[in-house]
Amino acid sequence: MTRYDPARPQTGPAELGHLMAEEVAEQPDALTRQLEHGMPDITALATHIRAVSPRFVLLAARGTSDHAALYAKYLIEIALGLPVGMVSTSTSTIYGAQPDLRDVLWIAVSQSGGSPDLVDSTTRAAAAGAVTVAVTNAPESALAGAARHHVDILAGPERAVAATKSYTSQLLALWLLIDAWRGGDGSQARDVPALAARVLADPTVLEVAQRYRFVDKIVATGRGYAYPTARESALKLMETCYLSAHAFSGADLLHGPLAMIDEDRPVLAIAPEGTGGRAMKPVLERLAERGADVCLVGDPTAAGTATSVIALPTGIDEQLSPILQILPLQRLAHAMALARRHDPDAPRGLRKITQTW
Amino acid sequence: MTRYDPARPQTGPAELGHLMAEEVAEQPDALTRQLEHGMPDITALATHIRAVSPRFVLLAARGTSDHAALYAKYLIEIALGLPVGMVSTSTSTIYGAQPDLRDVLWIAVSQSGGSPDLVDSTTRAAAAGAVTVAVTNAPESALAGAARHHVDILAGPERAVAATKSYTSQLLALWLLIDAWRGGDGSQARDVPALAARVLADPTVLEVAQRYRFVDKIVATGRGYAYPTARESALKLMETCYLSAHAFSGADLLHGPLAMIDEDRPVLAIAPEGTGGRAMKPVLERLAERGADVCLVGDPTAAGTATSVIALPTGIDEQLSPILQILPLQRLAHAMALARRHDPDAPRGLRKITQTW
Repeated sequence: MTRYDPARPQTGPAELGHLMAEEVAEQPDALTRQLEHGMPDITALATHIRAVSPRFVLLAARGTSDHAALYAKYLIEIALGLPVGMVSTSTSTIYGAQPDLRDVLWIAVSQSGGSPDLVDSTTRAAAAGAVTVAVTNAPESALAGAARHHVDILAGPERAVAATKSYTSQLLALWLLIDAWRGGDGSQARDVPALAARVLADPTVLEVAQRYRFVDKIVATGRGYAYPTARESALKLMETCYLSAHAFSGADLLHGPLAMIDEDRPVLAIAPEGTGGRAMKPVLERLAERGADVCLVGDPTAAGTATSVIALPTGIDEQLSPILQILPLQRLAHAMALARRHDPDAPRGLRKITQTW
Repeated sequence: MTRYDPARPQTGPAELGHLMAEEVAEQPDALTRQLEHGMPDITALATHIRAVSPRFVLLAARGTSDHAALYAKYLIEIALGLPVGMVSTSTSTIYGAQPDLRDVLWIAVSQSGGSPDLVDSTTRAAAAGAVTVAVTNAPESALAGAARHHVDILAGPERAVAATKSYTSQLLALWLLIDAWRGGDGSQARDVPALAARVLADPTVLEVAQRYRFVDKIVATGRGYAYPTARESALKLMETCYLSAHAFSGADLLHGPLAMIDEDRPVLAIAPEGTGGRAMKPVLERLAERGADVCLVGDPTAAGTATSVIALPTGIDEQLSPILQILPLQRLAHAMALARRHDPDAPRGLRKITQTW
């Protein structure tokens, strides 16, 4: 009999990893809360942004929030046709760069709103002429105060060090903002909370966690909107399981890192319905040639030679799919951490609010 | 007696890895060639760019060239005060995004100039209003033809799959272009070839290669201008040694991945003289707390508790230092591959020109 059975609900306060488990489970409620209460502020901000009509967008974030920002980059470039840059905050905070940011929309994304480099670079961006927006889970935070506009992701207090519900709430807030900016009413996201609950009820990922119990190197890959999912799942596995988890866009994987793939390094391939998932086909073929053990997350019809498949609901817009894609992968990180006797609520060496400059 | 002694020069055509060894050794000559013959074209292009006066810059590249592009991002943001974005080519090639690129300078960086996604996205960028520049080692390539302007990095034919001399030649070409754009005459780079030769003559890295012979997981980290060095060294180690090599900016490392660092995962810390190196101090302290085995590349006075130090020449501008930083790390990848009985000239699963869309 194993002491920590990842298939058993991890909800009691005495259980290792109960904070992360609870926050993973809360996600359908957090998403519902945002759809019910977040829209008026987001719609008003989108109206303002449309009036300002920025020509370039800069996104500033670190860690998990950086993956939500990367998702927003794809969405803005594809849905709005604006060029987007990811900010290297050190250029202003360390090197004192003073860019000309007229016509720029600056969006800083942070769960806590507490990282000094984001606060400082956002203050400088406003001084340099940018319209500044903070997307946080903390309306009273320094970052929310430093930005001209604030979007509250309404995820509720997040206590686990590994961010989970704040990530999916960031994704939804950014989607709602960009959808309103392009003139949408957000209604396409209506079913997302119920679909999230359905994905969280699927036990398949717990079998995958057992299969990968003794793995110490893993690769996650996806293209387009699914690439941030690959990045975020790798970070979760690094934080909670101390795995050597790499993430690559499907195209970048073929430009070098493919060489390190062999039969001992499983690959998490995010291939949802839609354009990004279809573009993974040549990547999956090359992985099969290299003998990789592939766990496919997404469209079962794309499974090919995958060893295991975690199916996602069909019929959801590819732009919203990342909110669902990450759910089984958060659970994978949690279950693998427990299987290895690590406490996913207390990753060694980490703090909830990271102070960087 | 070992069969492949990494301390022995690997120059004969019968030796494993002789192509990569030769191209690593050619770098001072390639850099000299560019300083002697590349300046007129670069100066003319810079004059044109100054006249056009772009307000935003987009950089498009993959693999090693993406790291040269990332270096240019820091340089343009800091030295020229322009916001910069790294292009996700899939947004145009796969999703058909049609951005408004008026006032945008588009720079595509590629050794071969042959990757279809770069050619296609550069063609689309020109149609969308951008001023397009290709930086390649192949003036007859499709990419050089697709862009309005071309910079030839003059590295000479590169035959090894792992890019080495094309990387440092890309860095120098980008520095020269941006220096001329800000009104410089390139003279600060005059000593770079001689300094590169001096760095390549230092045998310290071969001791490090022996120390890390049995390592299978490694992390590279740096900040600011040195962050692309960390990325590129990790890619080299993945390609040639199949190591699980991660790269993080010093700040991002503290936002999660620090948890996976322990005494069994050595860290290559790039900390040159100057602002970026000084900003690594808190990162080196946290690594010491976690018991990491650190190999410091850069300023010996920053060594702290590092196990080994690969010293770089002092007195070189931090903006040019990346051209020197990567040299011992290319040699580390080569020597570790030989020590593991891999042929660094023939990484499994890779081709020299990667076709991605």
